[in-house]
Amino acid sequence: MVKSNYPSIDVAPRVLLGPGPSLVDPRVLKAMATPLIGHLDPQFLDLMNKMQEMLRRVMQTDNQLTFAVAGTGSASMEASFANMLEPDDSILICINGYFGHRMVDMAERYGAKIHTISRPWGQVFTAEEVESALKANPAKVVAIVHAETSTGAMQPLDEIAKVVHAHDAYLIVDAVTSLGGVPVRVDEVGIDVCYSGAQKALSCPPGISPITFSDRAVEHIKSRKTKVANWYLDATMLGNYWGSERSYHHTAPISMNYALYETLRVILEEGLEARWQRHRETAALLWDGLEALDMSLHVEADYRLPTLTTVRIPSSIDEAVIRQALLHDYNIEIGGGLGELKGRVWRIGLMGYGSRKENVVLLLAAIERLMK
Amino acid sequence: MVKSNYPSIDVAPRVLLGPGPSLVDPRVLKAMATPLIGHLDPQFLDLMNKMQEMLRRVMQTDNQLTFAVAGTGSASMEASFANMLEPDDSILICINGYFGHRMVDMAERYGAKIHTISRPWGQVFTAEEVESALKANPAKVVAIVHAETSTGAMQPLDEIAKVVHAHDAYLIVDAVTSLGGVPVRVDEVGIDVCYSGAQKALSCPPGISPITFSDRAVEHIKSRKTKVANWYLDATMLGNYWGSERSYHHTAPISMNYALYETLRVILEEGLEARWQRHRETAALLWDGLEALDMSLHVEADYRLPTLTTVRIPSSIDEAVIRQALLHDYNIEIGGGLGELKGRVWRIGLMGYGSRKENVVLLLAAIERLMK
Repeated sequence: MVKSNYPSIDVAPRVLLGPGPSLVDPRVLKAMATPLIGHLDPQFLDLMNKMQEMLRRVMQTDNQLTFAVAGTGSASMEASFANMLEPDDSILICINGYFGHRMVDMAERYGAKIHTISRPWGQVFTAEEVESALKANPAKVVAIVHAETSTGAMQPLDEIAKVVHAHDAYLIVDAVTSLGGVPVRVDEVGIDVCYSGAQKALSCPPGISPITFSDRAVEHIKSRKTKVANWYLDATMLGNYWGSERSYHHTAPISMNYALYETLRVILEEGLEARWQRHRETAALLWDGLEALDMSLHVEADYRLPTLTTVRIPSSIDEAVIRQALLHDYNIEIGGGLGELKGRVWRIGLMGYGSRKENVVLLLAAIERLMK
Repeated sequence: MVKSNYPSIDVAPRVLLGPGPSLVDPRVLKAMATPLIGHLDPQFLDLMNKMQEMLRRVMQTDNQLTFAVAGTGSASMEASFANMLEPDDSILICINGYFGHRMVDMAERYGAKIHTISRPWGQVFTAEEVESALKANPAKVVAIVHAETSTGAMQPLDEIAKVVHAHDAYLIVDAVTSLGGVPVRVDEVGIDVCYSGAQKALSCPPGISPITFSDRAVEHIKSRKTKVANWYLDATMLGNYWGSERSYHHTAPISMNYALYETLRVILEEGLEARWQRHRETAALLWDGLEALDMSLHVEADYRLPTLTTVRIPSSIDEAVIRQALLHDYNIEIGGGLGELKGRVWRIGLMGYGSRKENVVLLLAAIERLMK
């Protein structure tokens, strides 16, 4: 039997300013190293309860069915579609970036009848567009991305939610790149299912993802004629595990729950308003700095996400060369474009713990040197 | 905005001797606290490659499609069914415990035509039983549990694999509670899909789970007429992410991958043979000790899992009271019975880092005191 000759983990420290994962607070890293306890240990159940309370505060909701999925943001996304859709249900999906397309791929797998509306990548939808789409093709569910990680656009939701509800449909919102960095007012807006990822503006390591279902969505799920076509992401079973029944489902990822618990504490200690303000200020500093370097921002100011900026690549430079030099020479990670923005933009994340003035100044200085 | 008044994580240290999670090597806890790098960072891709190599060694396979699912063992279980089954495909599921029933629940959700054979909880199947079931109802896929976490029985697989292949079917094996503690010879046995969990005998925290598909299984998946009815667990897309294409799918759970990487290093440093031997010796010590306390073991000696022991509860005691006293007075966690063994057995795990003589001696002494 050959023994291991694999080296221990020894990675260069990166300043993570891409689309995620973002930089994680050392407090959270430390929490993850806590020795494990059982997932049915009263101590762990107490942590789960407190985590749910904190999640509700951060998601600004009183929804009972609020919990953390034992998977990445894509798992939460799929949980939304798997639970809300039955075969032949109609859904309207609003596509203005990569993740709208992913929604279509997922909804298809659950046998839904899909209608889509589209906007160029980087733009947002109006409530009128959603309304005329629903008039043309009534739908049970409408899905839209609040913060498109592929484009940096932030979608206004209030008027759209009204339209969706006026048409007696349910609204699914992807808040992967907004939650923890910009307001996600689940109850006030009237979102029926809202999910996020851990590794963006929450600044928790990836592998666990918040989701919340309105009471109305829960009733909808209860009235399903068919079992949810996904065992691992069945919200009713997950709710019974997170709820007072504590019915065994999967084994909760203990260490990731430790991480999310400490993440939520960090967020609530800072305060949501203060955190949003910090994200706005840091983003403004970045935007000014990029424009001072004669670079132009892809999304118009009104709809620009503070958490993720897309900046157009000047035709004079080879974007991949500079991006690699940022990584290799300065240990700074930023993201390239995705999908139809590939090669056309950089994606710069200022999220959670990473949303700091020193990171902006460092990045701008490094880009300036490399573009000379 | 009310600030946080949630306490930091401060849990009593538990000796985890239940059905999982098991105790984790401090080396692995420390690895998890490593600062994050991006999931497309060349440093991370290198770790992924090395992890796949190590996983193949531990799973004793040359299968190209071997990787870690970004979810718990239940996610890997579901990945097996989601990828191998299309609607109306026939499957034979062997049920001799809780997880056989779970397999049925999952396979149903993918529209399979299910036949089952059953054995009392704690017993195992013969190849003849599988053969006559396949003759009565031909099936494309046969699913069986190698190590039933609910019963402590270890299923012999060699002859069953031959029968399954003679009937031109694919064999799915649940190795959640065996991998890392007892031999799981994927290639030698001829398992087509084998999955495990992290938090049992591998002694990694839950939240990531190994899976491997034989080339024959991969061909089967390639020949599907329908898309895999589960986006997050689509093995082809996951293979393209873990493979040389590195096609973006989800964001890998970086910290959990650090944990699994270090876990696999620990295992290969000890050596598989030495590790299996340690599990056998520690289990024997437990079995002798329990019998010396006049308790009887639920599974007959030939089919007893070294990683998880079920011991029958004497009628004279209230099992829940003693189990709670073990936890509260001595910080020792063991498991109660599940399903039809609820109240009838305890489940004692000696898995991975926790499989140590000192833990056995401690547990036996504590049980003896509490039963007086």
